[in-house]
Amino acid sequence: MVEPKYSGNIGGVARVMANFDFHNLYLVNPSCELDDECYKRAMHAQEIVENTKVFKSFEKAIKDMDYVVATSSVESKNDKRFLRNAVSLEFFSKKIFETTGRVALVFGREDYGLLNEEIAVCDLLVRIPTSESYPSLNLSHAVGVVLYSLFIYKGVKTRKKTRVIEGIEKEKLYGFFSDLLDEIEYPIHKKENTKVLFRRVMGRAMPSKWEYHTFMGVLSKTLNEIKKRKKV
Amino acid sequence: MVEPKYSGNIGGVARVMANFDFHNLYLVNPSCELDDECYKRAMHAQEIVENTKVFKSFEKAIKDMDYVVATSSVESKNDKRFLRNAVSLEFFSKKIFETTGRVALVFGREDYGLLNEEIAVCDLLVRIPTSESYPSLNLSHAVGVVLYSLFIYKGVKTRKKTRVIEGIEKEKLYGFFSDLLDEIEYPIHKKENTKVLFRRVMGRAMPSKWEYHTFMGVLSKTLNEIKKRKKV
Repeated sequence: MVEPKYSGNIGGVARVMANFDFHNLYLVNPSCELDDECYKRAMHAQEIVENTKVFKSFEKAIKDMDYVVATSSVESKNDKRFLRNAVSLEFFSKKIFETTGRVALVFGREDYGLLNEEIAVCDLLVRIPTSESYPSLNLSHAVGVVLYSLFIYKGVKTRKKTRVIEGIEKEKLYGFFSDLLDEIEYPIHKKENTKVLFRRVMGRAMPSKWEYHTFMGVLSKTLNEIKKRKKV
Repeated sequence: MVEPKYSGNIGGVARVMANFDFHNLYLVNPSCELDDECYKRAMHAQEIVENTKVFKSFEKAIKDMDYVVATSSVESKNDKRFLRNAVSLEFFSKKIFETTGRVALVFGREDYGLLNEEIAVCDLLVRIPTSESYPSLNLSHAVGVVLYSLFIYKGVKTRKKTRVIEGIEKEKLYGFFSDLLDEIEYPIHKKENTKVLFRRVMGRAMPSKWEYHTFMGVLSKTLNEIKKRKKV
């Protein structure tokens, strides 16, 4: 964070860092203290505040970094736009995990963001897409959105996947549904389409094993009920 | 926002809504005023605060909505806690723009989030992926991340939109399913859970009008069949 003004924002940033598994917070020339308001907003991320490193200049803060990434939600319309030519946050989030090394994410002041000379020494400018009518995010929200985006791409390989039902189980469910259509004397000319429709809807919903078994239970009970009555 | 406690959070939410082109803020039973702190945090999004609608109950707030989406950053560990079975924010963000209709995004209290009975009446639960060690986001950050995710997918050109079924039609479908459980003498202690499960699976699948009517047809024919046999 370059020259942050409000300690509440630093606390808010610390919390959202912890929420997305980021830990190293560097401050350049803050014009506020790490006071009670900061710790209050940090909630359970107090360790991040305690371990914050404070630097006197931007150059010193980024000295040991392999890759320095400026961030902005405001797109420049002026002459020097080449300086502010940016990649989108999504593009950056996908690409960055193809690399190794120490990456610094740089966030500017609450009011003026990053200066042109700061952006100039960064390796990349990442733009956070926002509304054209009110592009300027609150500082801790800007950090939150960037870290969220990185977090989801970081997790792509490792994230726990919920188990979807296997092909053979699925066919059983579809078989029950087909039996039901027979039992209720569903119009023959509509039957095939309705079976495909059921398959599509279930396919989109991707039921878990548990949900699948519950549906199977309801369908088999329904079939039994109809057959039982038929015998009477 | 359901029962927000701090006016600063409401202001923060209003600002980030404007940042991502969202405009309609509904509050259910806030325990704070829309005071100076709220307007200060809202910055240039004061119009959103001025136009905020306040409701006495959650039911009233979602009354005219076609699709109600609960949000949470905390994941349930229990596989059978289907009530909290969620889809990921990314999945939801892609899917929702394939539909039309009024969608409510529901955010819970700063401390307790949403209650189980509130989640139960929602069509879908969306999980915001966060760190396992500190999953709980600040309320306005949770809103920020969800709106950012929707904003970037809103910009993506989607396939031809299918109309999502309206709230009132949906309730009819759920009512038929509930009647079916009654007719087949489904175990009473499982009934409520199974109704919520049905709602979840349908909510994830987001059936089109056509699919909905087909399901309604199958369910009503099934119910008639069972009732007919009962009379015999």
